[in-house]
This record gives sequence, structure tokens and C-alpha cells, in this order.
Amino acid sequence: MKKEIRIVGIDDMPFSFKEKHTDIVGAVMRGGKYLESILKTTIEVDGKDATDKITGMIEGSRHRGQIKIIMINGIALGGFNIVDCEKIFLATHIPVITIARKKPNPKKIEEALKKHFDDWKERIELINKGETEEIKLKYPVYIKYFGIERNSAIDAIKLSIIRGAIPEPIRVAHLIATGIKKGESRGRC
Amino acid sequence: MKKEIRIVGIDDMPFSFKEKHTDIVGAVMRGGKYLESILKTTIEVDGKDATDKITGMIEGSRHRGQIKIIMINGIALGGFNIVDCEKIFLATHIPVITIARKKPNPKKIEEALKKHFDDWKERIELINKGETEEIKLKYPVYIKYFGIERNSAIDAIKLSIIRGAIPEPIRVAHLIATGIKKGESRGRC
Repeated sequence: MKKEIRIVGIDDMPFSFKEKHTDIVGAVMRGGKYLESILKTTIEVDGKDATDKITGMIEGSRHRGQIKIIMINGIALGGFNIVDCEKIFLATHIPVITIARKKPNPKKIEEALKKHFDDWKERIELINKGETEEIKLKYPVYIKYFGIERNSAIDAIKLSIIRGAIPEPIRVAHLIATGIKKGESRGRC
Repeated sequence: MKKEIRIVGIDDMPFSFKEKHTDIVGAVMRGGKYLESILKTTIEVDGKDATDKITGMIEGSRHRGQIKIIMINGIALGGFNIVDCEKIFLATHIPVITIARKKPNPKKIEEALKKHFDDWKERIELINKGETEEIKLKYPVYIKYFGIERNSAIDAIKLSIIRGAIPEPIRVAHLIATGIKKGESRGRC
């Protein structure tokens, strides 16, 4: 895999439950090193539009032809706005990798969804697409991948980590998302 | 000068003249390589608060003790909200360098200020603090510097340029400022 492969990392801005919408940020980088572009779009908190909004953000970008991998900080943005990574891959033909620092707890998520959403079955079905796999690098991360082979997904993660556990495109998107919303970036991805 | 010296680069978000305020973004980097933090604050379009807002943004940051140089994209942000770099240096004890890709045209600026502002004399006085100097690197840039010697200012600029004419902390702040406001980053610094 080329060291300068273009990856877009995506994370959401922090939000309060009073807010109906939140912004998501995409950081387009060459490997883990050079920032090429920043993308932004708006999704509904606990909505169902994250998949289409991410697809539109990438399809509408001037960098669309260069982006070879999409990395997302987890499987849900803006609360429980669950991302259908398979659908994004089928629409864009760009592989999608989700990365989480914490081990997902499907039972807890299921309980929360049942409690708060009439369409909880549909959301659980989306969450259950793909297998979650623990990858043991310097720090463990939990990933899913769509449209890419396991070895290539791991290669892409390895080459885009500079420090710590999280690939630079997601780390940078997280710094921007929290910094712009809060005045100073904070917290782990 | 240490290669990993912490520099904050500052640029403003684009705005229309209908808007009374605009945001400014600070990108804290180690040299030109590693993004450490994002800062944001809000200033008045054509106002007079940029100096105090930048000072507050930096003094209030968790990275305050690490930041060794402030770089600003030009001498004015948010239209004609002119930055008093000397005052920022005296308040923070952090050297300030302004960098512009285009040669400033003092006569044109003076005409515009006279036309639009009752306090044009005061604003011109601020603009005229420090000498503008052309630095011939791979591409020429026009700089002013406050609280730092000429050679050290040039060293800091050189070590923080990766590609092109503009130090990474300012380039990254520009990408974020335009990307967040417009949905996709655009334009040169």
C-alpha cells in the first residue's frame, strides 16, 4: 500500500441533547502525514441520515477521485445515527473502516436502542453489519471493514498511525470537531 | 531552534459583509509536522477585538506553556480587525510573526480605511507597527516579527514549511477555517 494513500477520517462534533443537529468533520490526509482538505456536513442527532450525508460529502468533494479509504470513528455518529458502511462502499466504491478504542458492547447498545427508538430493530440490523475484530497493535483497537481485505485494512491503519492507537485522519478530525465546537480540542477519540 | 517547537498558526473563517462576527482558528503544531490542538474564538467583522481575543484564546489554552511562537495569516483578520502583535507579545511573552503571500499595499489599505472608518488613524497606526520585510525562500513571503530576532523568525518559518510558501500551522488553520465554514476547504492562505 502506498504510504501517501489518501484517507479521509471522520468524526462528529460534541453535542448536547437539546441540539437537533450536529456537524461531522472529514480530514483528508496523505497517509498519516499531510493534511490536504477539510470537509464538513451536518447530521441529525439520533437521526438516520449519517450514511447519506457522508456519501454526499465525499461524492461532492473535489478530492473525491483521490480518496482511497474512508475511516470513521466508530459505527455511530451524532448519538445513534448509525452509519451503513456497506451502503457507503456500494455508493462510492471506496472501502470503509470503522475504528473504536473501546470494545463495543452490543447488549448495552441494544438495550439503549430498544428504550429510545421505535425503529430499534432496523438500527440493530445496521449495527450488526460486518464483524467487529480486535486488532492488537501497540494499543488494541476494534475495527470493522467493508470493501477491503483484512490485511489491507490493517496495513492502512498501521501506516496512518503516528502516535497512540488512532489513525491520524480520525485523530485530526476529532481535534477539529471538538476544538471548533468547544473553543479548544479535548478528549480522546 | 528545536524542530518540534510548538507554533500556533492563526487564520480567520471566510465571511460575508452581512455577518457581524466571524470565527478565527488556531492550529497548534509541533514544528510543521504534528497537530496537537485546535483553538477557536469569535471576533467582530471590521471590529477592534482581534488582539484581545487572540491573547485570551492563547492564555486560556491548556497548551499555553508549550506555545513558543504565534504565526498569523497577515496583520488583519475578519476584514479590518487589525492585530496589535506587539501588544500580544507584551501580554503573552510569546513572539508573534505575521506572514502574507502578497506584498501589502499600504496606500490602498489607507484609502480603504479612510473611506470606511472614523478611527482610521488609529487603525493605520496599528498596521504600521513593525517593518514589513520580504523573505525570499522557495517562494517569497512578506513578514513582520515582534519579540523575536530576524534570524530566529526566519528559522521558525523555514522549519515549519512542508510544501509551498506558507508554514504548516497557518496552512492547516486556513484549511480548517474555510472547510468548516464552507463545507470544503478552499483557496490559498
